[in-house]
Amino acid sequence: MREIGIGIVGGGYMGKVHAVAMSCVGAVFQTELRPRLVMVCATSMASADRYRAAYGFEQGTDDWRVLVNDPRVEAIVIASPQETHREIAEAAFALGKPVLCEKPLGANVDDSRAMVAAAEASGAVNMVGFNYIRTPASQYVRQLLADGVIGDITYFRGEHTEDFYADPDASATWRTRGMANGTMGDLAPHMINCALAMMGPVASVLGDVETVHAQRPDGQGGLAEVTNDDHAQVMCRFANGAMGHLFFSRIATGRKMGYIYEITGTKGAIRFDQEDQNAIWLYTSDGDDAQRGFRKILTGPSHPDYLPFCQGPGHGTGYQDQIIIEAKDFLTAIASGDSHWPTFRDGMEVNEIVAATIASSNSKTWRNVADFKS
Amino acid sequence: MREIGIGIVGGGYMGKVHAVAMSCVGAVFQTELRPRLVMVCATSMASADRYRAAYGFEQGTDDWRVLVNDPRVEAIVIASPQETHREIAEAAFALGKPVLCEKPLGANVDDSRAMVAAAEASGAVNMVGFNYIRTPASQYVRQLLADGVIGDITYFRGEHTEDFYADPDASATWRTRGMANGTMGDLAPHMINCALAMMGPVASVLGDVETVHAQRPDGQGGLAEVTNDDHAQVMCRFANGAMGHLFFSRIATGRKMGYIYEITGTKGAIRFDQEDQNAIWLYTSDGDDAQRGFRKILTGPSHPDYLPFCQGPGHGTGYQDQIIIEAKDFLTAIASGDSHWPTFRDGMEVNEIVAATIASSNSKTWRNVADFKS
Amino acid sequence: MREIGIGIVGGGYMGKVHAVAMSCVGAVFQTELRPRLVMVCATSMASADRYRAAYGFEQGTDDWRVLVNDPRVEAIVIASPQETHREIAEAAFALGKPVLCEKPLGANVDDSRAMVAAAEASGAVNMVGFNYIRTPASQYVRQLLADGVIGDITYFRGEHTEDFYADPDASATWRTRGMANGTMGDLAPHMINCALAMMGPVASVLGDVETVHAQRPDGQGGLAEVTNDDHAQVMCRFANGAMGHLFFSRIATGRKMGYIYEITGTKGAIRFDQEDQNAIWLYTSDGDDAQRGFRKILTGPSHPDYLPFCQGPGHGTGYQDQIIIEAKDFLTAIASGDSHWPTFRDGMEVNEIVAATIASSNSKTWRNVADFKS
Amino acid sequence: MREIGIGIVGGGYMGKVHAVAMSCVGAVFQTELRPRLVMVCATSMASADRYRAAYGFEQGTDDWRVLVNDPRVEAIVIASPQETHREIAEAAFALGKPVLCEKPLGANVDDSRAMVAAAEASGAVNMVGFNYIRTPASQYVRQLLADGVIGDITYFRGEHTEDFYADPDASATWRTRGMANGTMGDLAPHMINCALAMMGPVASVLGDVETVHAQRPDGQGGLAEVTNDDHAQVMCRFANGAMGHLFFSRIATGRKMGYIYEITGTKGAIRFDQEDQNAIWLYTSDGDDAQRGFRKILTGPSHPDYLPFCQGPGHGTGYQDQIIIEAKDFLTAIASGDSHWPTFRDGMEVNEIVAATIASSNSKTWRNVADFKS
Ligand SMILES: NC(=O)C1=CN([C@@H]2O[C@H](COP(=O)(O)OP(=O)(O)OC[C@H]3O[C@@H](n4cnc5c(N)ncnc54)[C@H](O)[C@@H]3O)[C@@H](O)[C@H]2O)C=CC1
Ligand SMILES: NC(=O)C1=CN([C@@H]2O[C@H](COP(=O)(O)OP(=O)(O)OC[C@H]3O[C@@H](n4cnc5c(N)ncnc54)[C@H](O)[C@@H]3O)[C@@H](O)[C@H]2O)C=CC1
Ligand SMILES: NC(=O)C1=CN([C@@H]2O[C@H](COP(=O)(O)OP(=O)(O)OC[C@H]3O[C@@H](n4cnc5c(N)ncnc54)[C@H](O)[C@@H]3O)[C@@H](O)[C@H]2O)C=CC1
Ligand SMILES: NC(=O)C1=CN([C@@H]2O[C@H](COP(=O)(O)OP(=O)(O)OC[C@H]3O[C@@H](n4cnc5c(N)ncnc54)[C@H](O)[C@@H]3O)[C@@H](O)[C@H]2O)C=CC1
Repeated sequence: MREIGIGIVGGGYMGKVHAVAMSCVGAVFQTELRPRLVMVCATSMASADRYRAAYGFEQGTDDWRVLVNDPRVEAIVIASPQETHREIAEAAFALGKPVLCEKPLGANVDDSRAMVAAAEASGAVNMVGFNYIRTPASQYVRQLLADGVIGDITYFRGEHTEDFYADPDASATWRTRGMANGTMGDLAPHMINCALAMMGPVASVLGDVETVHAQRPDGQGGLAEVTNDDHAQVMCRFANGAMGHLFFSRIATGRKMGYIYEITGTKGAIRFDQEDQNAIWLYTSDGDDAQRGFRKILTGPSHPDYLPFCQGPGHGTGYQDQIIIEAKDFLTAIASGDSHWPTFRDGMEVNEIVAATIASSNSKTWRNVADFKS
Repeated sequence: MREIGIGIVGGGYMGKVHAVAMSCVGAVFQTELRPRLVMVCATSMASADRYRAAYGFEQGTDDWRVLVNDPRVEAIVIASPQETHREIAEAAFALGKPVLCEKPLGANVDDSRAMVAAAEASGAVNMVGFNYIRTPASQYVRQLLADGVIGDITYFRGEHTEDFYADPDASATWRTRGMANGTMGDLAPHMINCALAMMGPVASVLGDVETVHAQRPDGQGGLAEVTNDDHAQVMCRFANGAMGHLFFSRIATGRKMGYIYEITGTKGAIRFDQEDQNAIWLYTSDGDDAQRGFRKILTGPSHPDYLPFCQGPGHGTGYQDQIIIEAKDFLTAIASGDSHWPTFRDGMEVNEIVAATIASSNSKTWRNVADFKS
Repeated sequence: MREIGIGIVGGGYMGKVHAVAMSCVGAVFQTELRPRLVMVCATSMASADRYRAAYGFEQGTDDWRVLVNDPRVEAIVIASPQETHREIAEAAFALGKPVLCEKPLGANVDDSRAMVAAAEASGAVNMVGFNYIRTPASQYVRQLLADGVIGDITYFRGEHTEDFYADPDASATWRTRGMANGTMGDLAPHMINCALAMMGPVASVLGDVETVHAQRPDGQGGLAEVTNDDHAQVMCRFANGAMGHLFFSRIATGRKMGYIYEITGTKGAIRFDQEDQNAIWLYTSDGDDAQRGFRKILTGPSHPDYLPFCQGPGHGTGYQDQIIIEAKDFLTAIASGDSHWPTFRDGMEVNEIVAATIASSNSKTWRNVADFKS
Repeated sequence: MREIGIGIVGGGYMGKVHAVAMSCVGAVFQTELRPRLVMVCATSMASADRYRAAYGFEQGTDDWRVLVNDPRVEAIVIASPQETHREIAEAAFALGKPVLCEKPLGANVDDSRAMVAAAEASGAVNMVGFNYIRTPASQYVRQLLADGVIGDITYFRGEHTEDFYADPDASATWRTRGMANGTMGDLAPHMINCALAMMGPVASVLGDVETVHAQRPDGQGGLAEVTNDDHAQVMCRFANGAMGHLFFSRIATGRKMGYIYEITGTKGAIRFDQEDQNAIWLYTSDGDDAQRGFRKILTGPSHPDYLPFCQGPGHGTGYQDQIIIEAKDFLTAIASGDSHWPTFRDGMEVNEIVAATIASSNSKTWRNVADFKS
């Protein structure tokens, strides 16, 4: 067991949960590497200092270069807006430091490509913060699929739906500007990553990407243009031949954390809804016909990464715990020197599918994902 | 109150439920017209006679012309395979007799068009057997939408999924031959009709129609080609601008009666699943934020067509009751002389969308539904 | 196949559903006996005539003796208030005519005892209208228990909860007067019958029976005393040693048809809620621990009495269908000459448990059910 | 912000989650007091040292007296077996040190009484570890009740059911010996505390406490006597007049974390199931009758103690988070000097009800809880 100095860029929504995760991941998972919260970076010294004190860092800074360059900082978590990811990651890799970067990897495909190149050139551990795929439930679903429990997959349906912009009168902000902050840029990556994890590569897509509310109040009595998308759907074919459908929305009234998937196989089916994240619904076509049905399996010690949180089944894990699992995987990767899935390359593949989808929506034609690969 | 002589073509799955419905619809709904079960037609005299005795008809026949032409038969229910619908309907209309035809209206668009022409030329009452749209729940959802309870609709997702062909080793039968008996031909019409009822006309579609299991055991030790589709999906835009997605499958393992829709509006959302047909899930964006959620409304006397079945709320209606409601609507239409929704014209619109979807899947391009109208 | 003349006493809530059931049970189940709706009885000739016309009876009467004595009436359904059950049944049995009597059998234990004596003396077929136990789901649960699928039962929890009197300002009516019309008298019998069917005899009970709202508006500006109970609970031990709990309420806000049971065994468990009457939840302690969970089984053709209503699984049956199943069982019993469960004797046992519970609540002590047997 | 030295007695199931909670509670809640993990105690130096290293304490000990007496230890968490709680707490209070004691407070009423006396004599902050009542959901339910949202309560049903001893062949251990480790002693306290929190004092109880499996394999080929209870039920009346029912079981096959309550009021109802801990089901009797139903409210930033874990609604908290909330409340109480609910006195009331229930089961009579108070 030895300490590792952690620097986190950003102290907002995600910066905080990463800081909390780094505070306790060692106690939860008995990781070999034990995080020491060295430095946090924010856009002003005032907020950086606030975060430092609140989360227990040794130092705050308003310049991410200071954080990246500090020799006490041995691993970096990037939890700042997507537009900043590339530059920070490149600087970290130049020094050979491991990076856990929040999703989406880059603000666009070009950024992601550059980040992958930098990561791979450096040989440093790299990982993307797709936390939802790390619940004990979704990890177990991956095992079920790998074990062929539901046979060959014929159909995959996924959603990432929330309703924070469902109200047409909600004001425009930075979130309503720039493709990286729209539904395809910001929400879609989680579920695209999930689809890839469950199903393997996507071969082709047909997208329909839409800005439903073209203008929103600008907060000053006027109206502002909305320059990114409110919802989007994609029909796809996976490389294994299966049919797929993905839907993403920030205007899905009533949906709070609609990270949902339904997977149909020749011998069974699986359903999952992140709004009840401790349950997996499994159907198998065996046994007495009169006794078949979707069973609601509650996660417990026999599922991946659950036991460290609680010895009792059905007691449940939550959002913060996903980030703790992520921190464990990041630390384990650093200790071993081998990057843990999903790497930057995996994150880039997500961006490629986002790009293919938007292109398809614009051209109104099917697009091969291969054409969006470098 | 007066009697009306009923003839039913077909005594199988649907012929039976129509016969039961005609036996008791008068008692349930106190219809002005009271059905008298005059004649049932099947493919052989033996089976026709069996049906006659079983369901209480006065006479059996193996020739639908005998049934249609008999002056005691004043109204006709067509519950024979789709390929037979056209000829029978045309003969009935030639005599000015009202027809309730099982879905899909015709075996293809041409048949449907001819049937609409015959119906409209005759002026006789005509109706298509889309029973699922007649549950108290789905009728009430239509009211909620009409009343604007969930605001402007932005997204509609529908499914009709079952799993009777999920097993790749299930044998080939007539069901695996001919487009009229595949998933698009046979299952899709119910949900397409639902989408039209809830959302209005479909403007354009992008379909992906697939035969997953190209061969099946022929029951004689060999393999037979499957000549129709196992599942299909459609992205669409409705004339009102809303985005839509429809999915149809006969291989959706675990799904028994997956007639499901989710409707998202600017002020609320609705979800329905026929597998729990007495519940409507409604979310509205009003009141205290901390108390919002999807509410499970159980159908009861305050919902359409429920009270005649039971005075207590939550006591529930079932499949057979949908057909009784349908019979009531057919009899009421005959009594008034005005066809009741959905008419043959409505049924034809469904066939047009089926045709547009298949064409789109073949051409791999968006298709305007208008191009499939006569 | 031959006709049987039916007389129904009462044309209200239950009279109607019995009339409908008798109209179509032959077509649904192909019963050997085919009902002919001979006579309906109500409290006035006007209403009797209305019912006759509405439901298709040959004759109406305001005197149940006329109905019972008419030779065309070969079997009788009693669907009038509990206070009337005894006298009518006794008259019918005196003539050796079969009787299907609505629940509760008698208005009290004495009535029930007299009715059993009359039934058994006559040798005529007799049956009590506990319809909820006749859903395909609950019939199948009985099979699962008999087959030992969930091992030895250790605990049974049952409810019959509705909310038609939840509002303290709802007016007093005949329903709020007389123990036969209170919660124990009127609602409890269904679930007590269920408990007996699933678990066998009850040995002892500890009741707590309460009138929560002692007065209600009398509809004339004043207040009326409520002379029966609003809700009640019972702890019990079954003869097989298992522990039980039953709860009954007419003030269970939000509950519409809360006929619920949860049965725990050494190898599994079962849950059922009538508000979703086409689903059985089954848990079994076998197979991989990581894949265990309550599975939601949808009723279908492989469950009892489902197929005659519909060939497709998951398509669902409803309240009216329960009464059709009941009519089938009654007719089958008559054809065979052997009474079908639950007989009047079974109905009397329910009344005995009601009596023991009320006595226990009054004495505030455990009571042996044996002490309430004749 | 200042540090506070924490000592935890026990490093097992609960010792670990308390250690994790103390590691990150400051970062999550920005508490004024920031825990420093000073010492952990276990039964051997080997295990104590393992816990020290694993969870990041400064020191391990096999003597709780060392821990209690160390001046660096300023607050103590007792997470050792119930039999040890009293002695440790008394020693801590003798030094005026605050104590957070795991449930149940004492191994019996006498222990609990002594612990309350010691706590109150010392004036030190004291709290019992009833974590389930601290979910954002259950905290919000308490607010709903206090605000009268569901009117006057008429019925409360609670459960704490698990299935870790459902298998009759599971071996005897310390858990199957001694009333403090049986279902009433070990599981019941959580839900009794919940009932008190939601409903106020319990006036009288009628218990039925049972050892279903009197012998279990002793692990050496023989059988061992089971000397505590497998399941138990209680009927009660609350001081406010409402009726109640509680059920506790360690043999409830299929139940993993069955901390369930259903609360019925004159204007609404609430349901909660810990197995889906991020959902509250609320029914209110207002608005259009046709739109009423139980709504599933997902916890989010507008519910108590949720926001510090996640800014997004529906993202969910888990078991570990409850202990973090508990730690926050303990630290806040220490900072303010005022004990936070539930205090040792509250914990003692739970033990009194446990005692009254067992006595009632033995005497088979209703017992007043007042008779079990000191
Ligand atoms: N995995 C998940 O579930 C979620 C991931 N995210 C991702 O996390 C990242 C951060 O998002 P939030 O925490 O929601 O944003 P936020 O606005 O709450 O916090 C952003 C933080 O970044 C800092 N920051 C901004 N520009 C900076 C710069 N140039 N240099 C250094 N620090 C800078 C700000 O001071 C602030 O502390 C984004 O990439 C977002 O897409 C966001 C929410 C959920
Ligand atoms: N609304 C719904 O939920 C359903 C609708 N259907 C539709 O109902 C229709 C009938 O289907 P099923 O009842 O499942 O078929 P089935 O095979 O069970 O019964 C067909 C009946 O038609 C009779 N028939 C066949 N050819 C005939 C001919 N040339 N002349 C006269 N009678 C003939 C047969 O003797 C048989 O009685 C189809 O159009 C089908 O798509 C079927 C199932 C469900
Ligand atoms: N199985 C079930 O789910 C239910 C059973 N019931 C039972 O059904 C029976 C009838 O109840 P409802 O139909 O709800 O009552 P209702 O008030 O709707 O109808 C009662 C009928 O009985 C007739 N009637 C009353 N007194 C009579 C008399 N002295 N002679 C002849 N006819 C008389 C009335 O004219 C009326 O037609 C009761 O025993 C009740 O407990 C009621 C509701 C549900
Ligand atoms: N709030 C909750 O959800 C739960 C509470 N509990 C409660 O937590 C307490 C501990 O239970 P578990 O953690 O399950 O037990 P455990 O057996 O997992 O751990 C007990 C710990 O106490 C230590 N210990 C035992 N005797 C000791 C002594 N005389 N002096 C010092 N340390 C001693 C052991 O070394 C061990 O580290 C119990 O009171 C139990 O009722 C247990 C599980 C869940």
